[in-house]
Amino acid sequence: MSRTIIEGKYYLSYECIHSTIRALAERIAASGFDPDVIVAIGTGGYIPARILKTFIAKSILTVGISYYGTDNKPDRMPRTIQWIDEVEKKLAGKKVLLVDEVDDSRVTLEYCLRELMRHAPDEIAVAVLHNKNKPKRGCFPPQIKKYFVGENLEDRWICYPWDALDIEKHTALSRRGEADQE
Amino acid sequence: MSRTIIEGKYYLSYECIHSTIRALAERIAASGFDPDVIVAIGTGGYIPARILKTFIAKSILTVGISYYGTDNKPDRMPRTIQWIDEVEKKLAGKKVLLVDEVDDSRVTLEYCLRELMRHAPDEIAVAVLHNKNKPKRGCFPPQIKKYFVGENLEDRWICYPWDALDIEKHTALSRRGEADQE
Repeated sequence: MSRTIIEGKYYLSYECIHSTIRALAERIAASGFDPDVIVAIGTGGYIPARILKTFIAKSILTVGISYYGTDNKPDRMPRTIQWIDEVEKKLAGKKVLLVDEVDDSRVTLEYCLRELMRHAPDEIAVAVLHNKNKPKRGCFPPQIKKYFVGENLEDRWICYPWDALDIEKHTALSRRGEADQE
Repeated sequence: MSRTIIEGKYYLSYECIHSTIRALAERIAASGFDPDVIVAIGTGGYIPARILKTFIAKSILTVGISYYGTDNKPDRMPRTIQWIDEVEKKLAGKKVLLVDEVDDSRVTLEYCLRELMRHAPDEIAVAVLHNKNKPKRGCFPPQIKKYFVGENLEDRWICYPWDALDIEKHTALSRRGEADQE
């Protein structure tokens, strides 16, 4: 499956993303992984996690991570914006589904996984809306056995609908791309 | 402004909601209220808050509140799913914009406001995607001076796109409603 690229970027509509997440949820269910709790990485994971909750009816906890400085360039290390309070109580012994919008460099995911694993969950699986096919600077710790991807994309900029200043223009561009999928 | 009602319910598309939030952000900016931080009430507030962040570029903290029991009927009291850690440090002296998707009974909003006010913010304003025109069981504490509404609706069930099991059917229904707005 390949998506149309417009001016070097992917444009994806909300409806397209919603459908991708539905298919992602079906693959998670088919794998037999039944999480006790969803942990969304903010702010990119908020919308994918909330849609996923429609298909996997579990509570969502959030962690806020910023990997970009105020100049919008990647920092050397992710910074914590918010962390789960009483994490030990909420994660210990639980099956956790960690959700983010995109697996890009994998640095943020690795950071979150290592932090979450300190709180003795039974198992953590990772689900991302999109994975970019590219060499990764971060890596999954060996305890991570399940990794679910909504859609694999080339290493290009992804224009998410929630970032659109003009949603009508964004949707028109995304429809040009989606027409090629039908 | 009145929206078309289909089988007694409102059906709203993602694009419609995105546009409502853009207009909401413009009204907040026009009021002169410039928040330091957005606090999203989960899980309903996650998507509105994340879209709002596109127009009001501030960090988002989340609080998880459930007002529904496992039988999907309202509990007597909201239950805390997640709360902000280190709240004092993050909220003290700050201008806070509290975001949720709908002001229905106002009970959840009142609960959150009273909790947040314990941490000495400079000011809290409330922004909701939708307000239902109905008598409210909860009330805003007198310190709350600013209340922003994306759209006022009748007291009917609102079908949000993120809750759709079939997004194509949902979008088709919402377009029937939106055509009447043009």
